[in-house]
Amino acid sequence: MSDITLAFSIEEYAARLAKVRSAMERAGIEVLVVTDPSNMGWLTGYDGWSFYVHQAVIVPPEGEPLWFGRPQDVNGARLTSYLDPASMFSYPDNYVQNPDVHPYQVLAKVLVDKGLAGKRLGVEMDNYYFSAKCLETLRAELPNAIIADATALVNWQRAVKSEQELVYMRRAARLVEVMHQRIRDVSEHGLRKCDLVAEIYDAGLRGTDGFGGDYAAIVPLTPSGKDASAAHLTWDDRPMRRGEGTFFEIAGCYRRYHAPLSRTLYLGEPPAGMLKAQQAVLEGLDAGLDAARPGNTCGQVADAFFGVLRKYGIEKDSRTGYPVGISYPPDWGERTMSLRPGDKSILAENMTFHFMPAIWTDDWGFETSETIRIRAGAPAECLADVSRELVVKP
Amino acid sequence: MSDITLAFSIEEYAARLAKVRSAMERAGIEVLVVTDPSNMGWLTGYDGWSFYVHQAVIVPPEGEPLWFGRPQDVNGARLTSYLDPASMFSYPDNYVQNPDVHPYQVLAKVLVDKGLAGKRLGVEMDNYYFSAKCLETLRAELPNAIIADATALVNWQRAVKSEQELVYMRRAARLVEVMHQRIRDVSEHGLRKCDLVAEIYDAGLRGTDGFGGDYAAIVPLTPSGKDASAAHLTWDDRPMRRGEGTFFEIAGCYRRYHAPLSRTLYLGEPPAGMLKAQQAVLEGLDAGLDAARPGNTCGQVADAFFGVLRKYGIEKDSRTGYPVGISYPPDWGERTMSLRPGDKSILAENMTFHFMPAIWTDDWGFETSETIRIRAGAPAECLADVSRELVVKP
Repeated sequence: MSDITLAFSIEEYAARLAKVRSAMERAGIEVLVVTDPSNMGWLTGYDGWSFYVHQAVIVPPEGEPLWFGRPQDVNGARLTSYLDPASMFSYPDNYVQNPDVHPYQVLAKVLVDKGLAGKRLGVEMDNYYFSAKCLETLRAELPNAIIADATALVNWQRAVKSEQELVYMRRAARLVEVMHQRIRDVSEHGLRKCDLVAEIYDAGLRGTDGFGGDYAAIVPLTPSGKDASAAHLTWDDRPMRRGEGTFFEIAGCYRRYHAPLSRTLYLGEPPAGMLKAQQAVLEGLDAGLDAARPGNTCGQVADAFFGVLRKYGIEKDSRTGYPVGISYPPDWGERTMSLRPGDKSILAENMTFHFMPAIWTDDWGFETSETIRIRAGAPAECLADVSRELVVKP
Repeated sequence: MSDITLAFSIEEYAARLAKVRSAMERAGIEVLVVTDPSNMGWLTGYDGWSFYVHQAVIVPPEGEPLWFGRPQDVNGARLTSYLDPASMFSYPDNYVQNPDVHPYQVLAKVLVDKGLAGKRLGVEMDNYYFSAKCLETLRAELPNAIIADATALVNWQRAVKSEQELVYMRRAARLVEVMHQRIRDVSEHGLRKCDLVAEIYDAGLRGTDGFGGDYAAIVPLTPSGKDASAAHLTWDDRPMRRGEGTFFEIAGCYRRYHAPLSRTLYLGEPPAGMLKAQQAVLEGLDAGLDAARPGNTCGQVADAFFGVLRKYGIEKDSRTGYPVGISYPPDWGERTMSLRPGDKSILAENMTFHFMPAIWTDDWGFETSETIRIRAGAPAECLADVSRELVVKP
């Protein structure tokens, strides 16, 4: 073990594993193949940018999980996870991105060798890191296996945050505060967007005297003007211009835990439509926060928000938030619940969401969002403290 | 169309489409569903961080490709791709990360509506963005469809770079030069790694007066000391220390085109083993560059490099490079050829690779790599100009 300290106590990892095993039992799954790097990290501590090759954590019915990956990443598993090196398995390096062979052939062999191949197997069918070929390979190698869809099984166990997880998310919130402060300080007509993004990274990485920042699972989304009518454009090297709005969807990140927060800035005189949208969004945001209480559903939060929007004559049909916590690219969401009408997931204390009111018209976009914690007896707590109003600069 | 200019001429996009269609014909594929965001961007210009939800570009037998994605990303497709808005299709927003429905149900419907469902369909089976569930959904919706594996079919068409692509890669090389210069300038005992990474981002994003940088598909890999024995660790907020080596695997990125380049830095007196490894790696690198000529195979480049390593008594079995160009997270490689023994892919002029000699022992890591262009009648050209020697600072 290196001098990297685990982000969580061994007891916390054990409790997570027990939660996952309970969920496996309820789902009738005996062995779980976990490919989502967020789930791999949450279960074992493993942390590295190795998810561009095939890897997995296997949760057997008993004993500690098994790490599976590329030989050159075994040292990373030793340095970052609590697992015993005897629980780490790798495939030959010539299996990397080689059309003639597939790492899951070796994973299947590990399952056979460990006596796990005859068990009811759960896989994350709809995950970035479990390709169709992974499934086809498992089926070919283990023709008698019963393979069940366990998409998001682990993700659901991550929904309620521990005290230590909240410590990290609060640090991430401190980071996103200084990032937005920097945006306010430096934005001006003529500043190249790439230079502004450099400032955002600078603030989020240097952080504070106490701690610095990690990379967020999504890069800063910073479109200006008409580009801000699109939800997911990044940046280029053109200058900011007077008469344009820019929204900033960014997150602070500490030890892989995220606090996303969006704000919008306008250089010059904001259009009336944007100011009207702001009024609706801010009022709707408060209504949503008030509805975001233990026992209520995700759908009720969305209804509260969209109800206010409708009052202002604004129709919007995209979802308005999702749970957040530990994550790796390409998404900082947990991909379980959604704050959308009809989502019957019940809120519980210490669930955390990116509550994400945003309006995109064909001419501009306006976003103001909060990372929130569900708490008893009060509207949801906003983890970061950043003024919600449109930032207007000359 | 916004004032974002397309990165390439309409003629270049047309030529790419024609190349892909020829490859489809050779593979007996009539309709291709492209989910790799790098392939989507290369074919249509589409550029946005929307790949965390399902999306695709469909290449029909004739006519322009179809863009398929989330409603809120249609504006992004309008602003960044050359496609006609009539060629853009979206699924309802409540299909996003909703276990009860799947976007590929809608994609299947688009195929049916366009009369493409009866065609022989190619999909990218082993791609991050084509999950097992995508395949299962297509099979359920189109039970009579013949679905073939077209993994990397488009990627292979990207191997030989156009003049304009090389312009962007050379700009990326200028960016990685300033990034490494910054590392040399600021690294010192006591500097927190997160602050150093902020400097790396600052250099790579601000770039030069002429142009700024884009985000690379992999964040800076910057492990120090024993952590550098692991290939893919990122950073934390602990300080750099005298008596430790750090390798920096980073890339400049311009308009999504990458020039990766690794170097290693040591604070204090480097261990003899690292200096010996350096000697072997530098000599092996030259041998590999000399072998990297049109008509030779990828395997021959690897053999030349590993032959020198063996002469020095160093055994290494991981691959030593891969093609690079346009890319999105989580990988800046093209996932086709590999510079590894036995890879029979034949090199051609204007192919570009990240030639990646690296040695990881159990105690440290040493990397020095180059982004190279294959050219006629000479060893491969290194796109960036950065001294290869271990950087030693007090």
